[in-house]
Amino acid sequence: MNGAQAVLQTLVDAGITTCFTNPGTSEMHLVAGMVAMPEMRGILCLFEGVATGAADGYGRMAAAPAATLLHLGPGLGNGLANLHNARRAGTPVVNVVGDHATYHKPFDAPLDSDIEGMAGPVSKWVRRTESAARAGIDTAAAIAAARTPTGHLPGGVATLILPSDVCWSEDGTPAAVPAVKPAPIDLDAVERVAKVLRSESECLLFIGGGAMRREALAAASRIAQATGARLLAEKSPARHERGAGIPCVDRLPYPRDLAAAKLAGARHIIFAGARPPVSFFAYPGKPSALVPDGCEVHDLGSNPGALHQLADLLAPGVPPLLAAAHRPRLPKGNLTAQKAAAVLGALLPEGAIVVDEAMTSDEWLPEATAGAPAHDWLNITGGSIGMGMPVATGAAVACPDRPVITLEADGSAMYTLQALWTQAREGLDVTTVIFNNASYAILEGELRRLGGFDGAAARRSRTMIDIPGLDFVALANGMGVPATRARTAEALAEQLRLAMAEPGPHLIEAVVPPVTATGTAGADVRPV
Amino acid sequence: MNGAQAVLQTLVDAGITTCFTNPGTSEMHLVAGMVAMPEMRGILCLFEGVATGAADGYGRMAAAPAATLLHLGPGLGNGLANLHNARRAGTPVVNVVGDHATYHKPFDAPLDSDIEGMAGPVSKWVRRTESAARAGIDTAAAIAAARTPTGHLPGGVATLILPSDVCWSEDGTPAAVPAVKPAPIDLDAVERVAKVLRSESECLLFIGGGAMRREALAAASRIAQATGARLLAEKSPARHERGAGIPCVDRLPYPRDLAAAKLAGARHIIFAGARPPVSFFAYPGKPSALVPDGCEVHDLGSNPGALHQLADLLAPGVPPLLAAAHRPRLPKGNLTAQKAAAVLGALLPEGAIVVDEAMTSDEWLPEATAGAPAHDWLNITGGSIGMGMPVATGAAVACPDRPVITLEADGSAMYTLQALWTQAREGLDVTTVIFNNASYAILEGELRRLGGFDGAAARRSRTMIDIPGLDFVALANGMGVPATRARTAEALAEQLRLAMAEPGPHLIEAVVPPVTATGTAGADVRPV
Repeated sequence: MNGAQAVLQTLVDAGITTCFTNPGTSEMHLVAGMVAMPEMRGILCLFEGVATGAADGYGRMAAAPAATLLHLGPGLGNGLANLHNARRAGTPVVNVVGDHATYHKPFDAPLDSDIEGMAGPVSKWVRRTESAARAGIDTAAAIAAARTPTGHLPGGVATLILPSDVCWSEDGTPAAVPAVKPAPIDLDAVERVAKVLRSESECLLFIGGGAMRREALAAASRIAQATGARLLAEKSPARHERGAGIPCVDRLPYPRDLAAAKLAGARHIIFAGARPPVSFFAYPGKPSALVPDGCEVHDLGSNPGALHQLADLLAPGVPPLLAAAHRPRLPKGNLTAQKAAAVLGALLPEGAIVVDEAMTSDEWLPEATAGAPAHDWLNITGGSIGMGMPVATGAAVACPDRPVITLEADGSAMYTLQALWTQAREGLDVTTVIFNNASYAILEGELRRLGGFDGAAARRSRTMIDIPGLDFVALANGMGVPATRARTAEALAEQLRLAMAEPGPHLIEAVVPPVTATGTAGADVRPV
Repeated sequence: MNGAQAVLQTLVDAGITTCFTNPGTSEMHLVAGMVAMPEMRGILCLFEGVATGAADGYGRMAAAPAATLLHLGPGLGNGLANLHNARRAGTPVVNVVGDHATYHKPFDAPLDSDIEGMAGPVSKWVRRTESAARAGIDTAAAIAAARTPTGHLPGGVATLILPSDVCWSEDGTPAAVPAVKPAPIDLDAVERVAKVLRSESECLLFIGGGAMRREALAAASRIAQATGARLLAEKSPARHERGAGIPCVDRLPYPRDLAAAKLAGARHIIFAGARPPVSFFAYPGKPSALVPDGCEVHDLGSNPGALHQLADLLAPGVPPLLAAAHRPRLPKGNLTAQKAAAVLGALLPEGAIVVDEAMTSDEWLPEATAGAPAHDWLNITGGSIGMGMPVATGAAVACPDRPVITLEADGSAMYTLQALWTQAREGLDVTTVIFNNASYAILEGELRRLGGFDGAAARRSRTMIDIPGLDFVALANGMGVPATRARTAEALAEQLRLAMAEPGPHLIEAVVPPVTATGTAGADVRPV
């Protein structure tokens, strides 16, 4: 078999049967290999950022990697922003990038570039395969690297660069993937933390990553119930199981001052699956670190088993505190982001996967959905916008029997709108709600903080942040996705019901006014 | 003034008064500075690839840099593909990337990444400004670097990384830009080449870059007329002046075998503004280099003045061979790519700027437009698709009095479609023609070359390369651009006339069948 076939067979043998593709001429042998290998599902994307974001969404929900297939350096470049989010999420991704033939490289052909240079910043592992004989071995190593926990992260992005002659040469052999060790549990740390929690006051259990799943949340809740420790979660967990019957945990707020206030007074912070939080951006005169001065920090590592061990020590027989079933009442009248949150809370179906890139419109969502039937909530881990619709696409591929709902801001929607085409092509059950406030509203608050512009300058400032004139119904229709527009809460509820009742993708443009910022420095904004 | 103001004042003082922006929180002081400085025109883009492509288009037409404003590593990532094209074009671009405050970097906040790592592969110059006091000096150095000719290129991408505290700190001073030397003219090389052209046969004058402008083309034509040397141009010059009254020069074809055939027999190739051409991609068993074995190569450098010197030596009194005015007749009936080319040739207005990313649909365009009124033709220099609409956007900003026509393939259109919004927002006089053949047609030829798929595999192969269901009229309307669809040659002509008669952007979806590939290895394809 040729090198391309060895790569694909190694992936399939390791259970990696989904590949999000945007290939070019240098990847044609990999495409031909996929055509002849029905076990591998190739899913075409019209832009690389869709492919990499979909791989992130797939990996978060499947807890196993998907592969990508990208076209040389520029193709990788287009995929970097969502690989950045995947890197921050610790999502396992086998990121395959084609390149020119090995002997063609010295000629510096027009599409040639430094692929390793571009891949490094988002990858935990980068390798260029030098021969067809190495194709299987290198692919297996990439899979192992993607799956291997590192630091507080469960996995990561492994970038495998495949020159075209490596793919077409006939010396390929598939390889088996080396066993991957789970993240260790530091039993001494568990003992030490148990002692702290037994003897000290003002303790805070700060969780994230793999600790945001139902069983680990139950253990964390039991510990909190038994010891009086506060429970708090990182701002943007990659995957957060929540809703009725699951312990409810507050997430750290985005605005720096609110986040610092949330941690104030803690004398011991115990981290499980999370790192010490920092301000999302720097602001003049404000510290970056959020952990209070003099507070002692402890780390349970990323394996949620540590929480179970700790719960066994501290809370035998103590039950977790579970969120009660509760839904808001359906609101009426002109739509606002707050009412839209209530509509979502009222109608969110059991088992939904919610992908949240609603930005300034997301303020009321956590509370409105806290008592909805159990669901998963996926967040923007690296702050790089344009992840919502691609991540939803991948999540829907990973979980075809679950409804997927994307909550998307108008500004961030425009980075990777092409995801809608793949949703239509694959018939994915995704409902996208676009919060259209015709503005980069988050920047409005930041800009207002910096200057009292009036007259011509005020008008100029609008042209820097307003984004009027986007018709998301037309845009969705242009990619084959049925779409409607809601200007009232009643219309949103009706359209959401219809969208979720009918298989396949739908889009609802929710026309909302911008959220009024409070004007407090660093307290009125969300990341852009 | 603060660092941001020093950056902006340095740009404006150097004549750089256009900035294509997609900013975030860390760039807010630069945005606030622009609001207060009306001499700087900030043009908002909804995606970074639009901003960088627009800067490329602006720089090609203005022969002077525009600035960009991008948001940290992920924002730069989204802009890399079009910076790759700018790098290959040698377009001067001052690529400004905001970053976290200097003291915030060690905290590895979610949006933190290795910006230098990402910027390196597309930049000839990268610098991180360490203090407000350095902001003006570093900006001036970036401008000088962008303007400095290097190798065969007239300029390049200079990436300036500006931490947010550098921008907000009050110690900024604007700086003057050091003088930039033009590319040297090697008079000895001119003498040597003159000798070769006087005494040798089978000589080929191979031009590109700055030699593709009217005056340099005239010099090259006079040399060819006087000496019998053949005249040929690189495949994808950044900016090619052509049409009636300008010397006509064939460009190297894309397919490897056709390109090699074009150079066959040459015993001396003299390069002016171009590098020795290589195959765009590698194909099994085919050499990468296209210069024939045993052929002697000579280099006149990138300064077109060398051609003028050579013409003075070899062709005093010899006139250039100018293209005669000629337009094809308007065709009739169902639209094809060939008929669309004739329509364009028949209607192309005087002074048009044509941006060509028509891919497989561009085969008949050069001939059909060769005798149209004088115009500029901008090509995809680095092979990274998604450049068409952004480059057209920037060209229209640089040349507000000239009509801009984008010839765009459906596949490549979907990478940076957001450019349409900026065209609508700014009221730019751009007419976009989308050749919609519902396929990555270029890959169809490549894939067919690799396998005789039938049955289920044939159906699977279609899902890897077909891209049906895109409605570009709806997509354009969704961004505020009026649009129509043409299925006949008559309709295209009528719609093109109307679009060009009315100010502001328009889009025409030209529905065409895929171009039938010839099946010859490497000879039936264009770059994807």
